[in-house]
This record gives sequence, C-alpha cells and structure tokens, in this order.
Amino acid sequence: MKLLGLDPGLRRTGWGLIEADGDRLHYIAAGVISSQNSLSLAERLVQIHDGVAETISHYCPDEAAVETVFVNNNPITTVKLCHARGVILLVPARVGLSVSEYEPTLIKKTVVGTGHAKKVHVALMVYRLLHVHEYGPRHHDTNDAADALAVAICHAHYRTTPLRLPEKRQRSH
Amino acid sequence: MKLLGLDPGLRRTGWGLIEADGDRLHYIAAGVISSQNSLSLAERLVQIHDGVAETISHYCPDEAAVETVFVNNNPITTVKLCHARGVILLVPARVGLSVSEYEPTLIKKTVVGTGHAKKVHVALMVYRLLHVHEYGPRHHDTNDAADALAVAICHAHYRTTPLRLPEKRQRSH
Repeated sequence: MKLLGLDPGLRRTGWGLIEADGDRLHYIAAGVISSQNSLSLAERLVQIHDGVAETISHYCPDEAAVETVFVNNNPITTVKLCHARGVILLVPARVGLSVSEYEPTLIKKTVVGTGHAKKVHVALMVYRLLHVHEYGPRHHDTNDAADALAVAICHAHYRTTPLRLPEKRQRSH
Repeated sequence: MKLLGLDPGLRRTGWGLIEADGDRLHYIAAGVISSQNSLSLAERLVQIHDGVAETISHYCPDEAAVETVFVNNNPITTVKLCHARGVILLVPARVGLSVSEYEPTLIKKTVVGTGHAKKVHVALMVYRLLHVHEYGPRHHDTNDAADALAVAICHAHYRTTPLRLPEKRQRSH
C-alpha cells in the first residue's frame, strides 16, 4: 500500500511517499514542489497543480493524506495557504484517490509523541522511523519533505480507524 | 471579447459570461456551480473544478476575472471559501486564460456606484446594464449569477487599466 503525504504551502509544498506493509513502513521518495513568488496567484496554483499531478502520475500512490490548516494570527498567510491547499486536495481526488485530512497536532503526536514538537524533531523522528540515513536536499527541503512523510506515517497509523477527519461520504453510507 | 466572471463559493460558485464590444456589453450566459454538502471537501472541490472547466470548454472565454476574498469574522467560512477559490483560479489559468482579481467593493462601485451595495441591488443593476429582462433560475441562483456577471462587467471596465490587482508577471516584465 503506497501512501502519499502532502504538507501544503503556497511557496513550498512537501510531499512524501511511503510503503505501508502491515506495521512496517518503508521510505519510497520525498521532495518539495515550489511555486515562484514572481508569478500571479493563479499561475502559482498551476505550478502546484502540475507538481502534485506529476508526483501522483510518477509514483501511483494508493491513497493520499493532507495536513489540515492551522489558522494562525496572520489572515493573509492563512488565505494564501488555503488557496494552495484547495488545489492540493483537488489533484488526488480528481484521479479517484481517497484523500484523508489530519490535524498538525495529531501528526506530530503520532510521529514524535507530543503535539507540540518542533519541525527539526519531526524530521529527525521521521527519518529514524523510516530508516533513512542520508537525505540530500537543502535544509528547508529536508524539513518540508519530512513534514509530508510525517503526514503519510500518520495516515498509515490511522487510515483504518475513525481518528482521521471523517470523509463525509464514507460516514453517510 | 468574451469575458468570464466568477464569484467563488464552496457551496455555490456563480459564473457569468459577457461579450465586451468596445463600451457595449452583451449578456451571453450565466449560472451557478453547486457542490454537495454531503461530500468530503476534496470531492466538493472536484465538483467545482469540473463545473468551471465545463463552462470554459463550452463558452471559450478570452479572459477570466475572479472576485477576491473578503476575510470575514468567521475564519472557518474564510478557510472553506479560499479552498474553493484556489480551484476556481486554477482552472482558467491551466488553459492559458489571463485571470484578473477584483475587490468586492470595486466590483460593486463599478456596477451600482457604491462599494456597499446590497446583493439585490447589484443584481438589479447587472440585469439592467446587460438588458436582461427575464432570468429563469431560482432566487439565490439569480443573485449568485448576477454577482459573477458584475465581476465580468468590472473586468470589462478595468481590464486595460492598472486598477485591477496587478498580475505579478506582467508587472515584472
């Protein structure tokens, strides 16, 4: 079962793919989709769309999971993030993948043991859990990709339980 | 020149198409794209995507314009709206249309003469300006479609001036 985790951002969207084989998790690939600050919002959303679509088409995941939005004190940041997240939810759903959503605190708690872990601790635990000893990209890429892998790990734990945000259609059946 | 106006909403997205022939504006078509409340957010975004894509593919507009988000007091409403708006900006941009963005107050001011006009007054003025005497759909549809036509009318007025929100790429060239 290949699980794709996505950590949305307008400037940088992390993605991480793992293989869940029962309780055993294996790292497949991870990376970051960037959008250019110099473009219009609509054009940046196209870049994010194309990046996520290419990742899905290349790796053919079975399910996708996306981190929910933490509504912070800066409404402009939240507004931008939600535009990107709309596109990020859309792409896997359009090709028929189930798309689960998880709160940031649940993701951190699942991976590190506390809902208030720092980014760097999440990255350390993710790479330890997945037995990834070397990871090439630049510092920020490493953390954003790790956040996305953390979403995938969280989904591996909760995909068969009701702890994830309910998918309305499944609930109503 | 066919101009498509879009008034984003998660539940109901208005769309309106006009022909701008110099200063003369003609109504072509208008309607509402709905998403089902019973589906998951990702599935609703697919419905919105497909509705906008179908409208564009059917009417082949030359340019698109989308209303900006008014950040209201309910962050949950704003968050939902922005997810939908991300998809609504994406679809025309993906097929190479320019996508302009206009503030709600500028749209109202352009159509009614005041930035604080009520929905029903916008609708009345839109249908008067476009010489539409009969419009079939239900009450809410009429208003949502009128809001979208108002976006298209605003774009017809400002598309060659710098009053719309700047498209970053155009600015930097």
